[in-house]
Amino acid sequence: MNVSEKRIVIVGAGFAGLNAAKVLGKVAGVAVTVIDSRNHHLFQPLLYQVALAGLNPADIAAPIRGLLSRFANTRVHLGEVESVDAARRRVLVKGGAPLEYDYLILASGSNHAYFGHEEWEQFAPGLKTLEQATEIRRRILTAFEKAETCQDPDQQQRLLTFVIIGGGPTGVELAGAIAEMSHFTVAKDFRSIDPRMSRVILIEGAPRILGAFAPELSASAADALAGLGVEVRTSCMVSQVDEHGVTAGGEAIAAATVLWAAGVKISSLGESLDAPRDLQGRVRVEPDLSVKGFANIFVAGDLANFTAADGKQLPGLAPVALQQGRAAARNIAADLRGEARQPFHYLDKGMLATIGKNKAVGQFRKLRFTGFVAWVAWLCVHIYFLTGFANRFLVVFHWAWSYLTFKRGARLILGKDWRVYRRRRGE
Amino acid sequence: MNVSEKRIVIVGAGFAGLNAAKVLGKVAGVAVTVIDSRNHHLFQPLLYQVALAGLNPADIAAPIRGLLSRFANTRVHLGEVESVDAARRRVLVKGGAPLEYDYLILASGSNHAYFGHEEWEQFAPGLKTLEQATEIRRRILTAFEKAETCQDPDQQQRLLTFVIIGGGPTGVELAGAIAEMSHFTVAKDFRSIDPRMSRVILIEGAPRILGAFAPELSASAADALAGLGVEVRTSCMVSQVDEHGVTAGGEAIAAATVLWAAGVKISSLGESLDAPRDLQGRVRVEPDLSVKGFANIFVAGDLANFTAADGKQLPGLAPVALQQGRAAARNIAADLRGEARQPFHYLDKGMLATIGKNKAVGQFRKLRFTGFVAWVAWLCVHIYFLTGFANRFLVVFHWAWSYLTFKRGARLILGKDWRVYRRRRGE
Repeated sequence: MNVSEKRIVIVGAGFAGLNAAKVLGKVAGVAVTVIDSRNHHLFQPLLYQVALAGLNPADIAAPIRGLLSRFANTRVHLGEVESVDAARRRVLVKGGAPLEYDYLILASGSNHAYFGHEEWEQFAPGLKTLEQATEIRRRILTAFEKAETCQDPDQQQRLLTFVIIGGGPTGVELAGAIAEMSHFTVAKDFRSIDPRMSRVILIEGAPRILGAFAPELSASAADALAGLGVEVRTSCMVSQVDEHGVTAGGEAIAAATVLWAAGVKISSLGESLDAPRDLQGRVRVEPDLSVKGFANIFVAGDLANFTAADGKQLPGLAPVALQQGRAAARNIAADLRGEARQPFHYLDKGMLATIGKNKAVGQFRKLRFTGFVAWVAWLCVHIYFLTGFANRFLVVFHWAWSYLTFKRGARLILGKDWRVYRRRRGE
Repeated sequence: MNVSEKRIVIVGAGFAGLNAAKVLGKVAGVAVTVIDSRNHHLFQPLLYQVALAGLNPADIAAPIRGLLSRFANTRVHLGEVESVDAARRRVLVKGGAPLEYDYLILASGSNHAYFGHEEWEQFAPGLKTLEQATEIRRRILTAFEKAETCQDPDQQQRLLTFVIIGGGPTGVELAGAIAEMSHFTVAKDFRSIDPRMSRVILIEGAPRILGAFAPELSASAADALAGLGVEVRTSCMVSQVDEHGVTAGGEAIAAATVLWAAGVKISSLGESLDAPRDLQGRVRVEPDLSVKGFANIFVAGDLANFTAADGKQLPGLAPVALQQGRAAARNIAADLRGEARQPFHYLDKGMLATIGKNKAVGQFRKLRFTGFVAWVAWLCVHIYFLTGFANRFLVVFHWAWSYLTFKRGARLILGKDWRVYRRRRGE
């Protein structure tokens, strides 16, 4: 490394971090290090498709090294950042040497929040990682398998009851896909059970599902879910999740499979900065995405609380993270060129949520879409954004196959042979 | 079920069991139950490609239910068979009701044998299941990641040393693919290490690798491996495998990644039969594949020791298992029609082993192939046999992509988030 080079550390290779790196990869006179605890970038908006066996993990994930290998000024570091030492301009890495920086971009994202009930996680996994998606897939498929050989009708009904907690886009997409899978896809494979016996229940605490969307779209989505056989319960609070199932709105629902799609927990890295944060833990950023008092630290993506000029806060969406990552990187490049930083402006890309195989709801500025038209829009947008993965073609093929045959190509239950060895090896 | 129907139980849905089920699915008057402890059929000959991140698990595996769903007389049972109670004509299933049969086909296959050193398994995983393939992939890719951030040259060399024990087709294919991956594919992704530093060592106890092939093909394969930078050690015995590496031929080799491709352990189900077995535990079968003294029990695939008319024993290959499964099923059908059973004759399909991206060795009766021609033959044969998977097209695409770009599409390291919960849940 050249001593005159500016060292830039990017924490996290989600949409924000990866796109920041892609901008900085083309800037001369910088040495970029991207650090992430996982070796792959994940296209999270399609993670529910992995959980429902419509896609393979590798269809929506790509090694970070491969995505950034063309940038000679960039190195990828697999490791876990423990905290930021802003005074000494370095990030501390678990089990490794600290990384020093001249500029830092924090984009470590978010995970699930169980609202103080962390013990619910084991009964109701969330959907943020490929492992969680694979685990959810395993639970859903195993429930059908157990129901097939189960002699006790009550137990069989419990095995065929699926509860999804949280009526945001992920919850809606999971509920729609499970209903479709259980009513149509799996139907002809079983002999002792009728998969149409299965109940899919979507629970939302607020008065309507898809609260971030326009009310008429919430209503349209609820209709579409009802059409697929999903029981939608709004204004319904969950008071208990355990091995038997869920207690919601005072009613105990026996369910073998409970999935969590409610609440976001922000990466705790923000805590190591002496900077203002909101109630969720997101760091309040300046108009240029830097942190107040730290001109060389930027925050982007789910970890950032950005208040737009109209006073609205931006939601935790992929397009927001992507644009913020790029903007933070461009402001660093502007600094290095001696130019003025630019305030961040979000270019609204709209929102889409899909319900089953051929319906969706979407809004783009003042436009509203529903039904098949919205679904086609959703499909095009997601295929378009799966860039750089070499897999765009595979994704289309998988879906087309699934659509035409009602089969699920990736319907494998993968087990746990190796955990005992990993435990022994202390991994 | 009709009381006049004959109940046929097939244990195992590998090549033998699956192909037996496909024959019996078209026979009238039978009720077939296929039982397997996994929900998927696996195309084992390509498993090493999953381990080396060239293919996805779903490319070479398909749900058994899906493969057999068109046969209305067939049901699939996910469960583990503990033993056969031949006197009462039933198989005992772990945690479930016994399955009664009129005819039984045992095709429960084989696993790895560590020659009395079962404790080696944790350090040197074998390659029989998708989980093992994923674990091997995780170890190989993690070794490169750790080497990238490692400051100690000795430790770095250990991380970049890969030892494969066993010079049969699986060992040869693993060694070739690891050498290729480390010398070419991964090369440009790393900054701190030169992946060409990596050593790949293939250890075989016999005087030559690929002992089942003609001697000139063994020599050709050894040359091709040397060309890829693999150190081939024959007549070399392993005396120790532990967390440091391997001791072979008296020399201690420090290696972070050790893989096991030696020795086969036959399914223990044969022990519950009062029937002659060979030293490996394989059940000696009659010319019609039935078990001496039990005209209604057939054994097929790796579990069967079949001595051909020329006195030779058939090897544990996919084509042998496939043909035996079909033959056993046809003999049951012959019984039901009141016709005579036919003795089994193996139609030799030859043998192929691939070495890296564009070389292979093959023999078919008196013919011998080497180099690119053999590789093309290998490719065609494997694509042809991946039938019924809906994935033949994907496999070709993945390979073509890999070949053209030197990238590995499926290079994901997947972790272990869920094992702690599974342990708590007692799974």
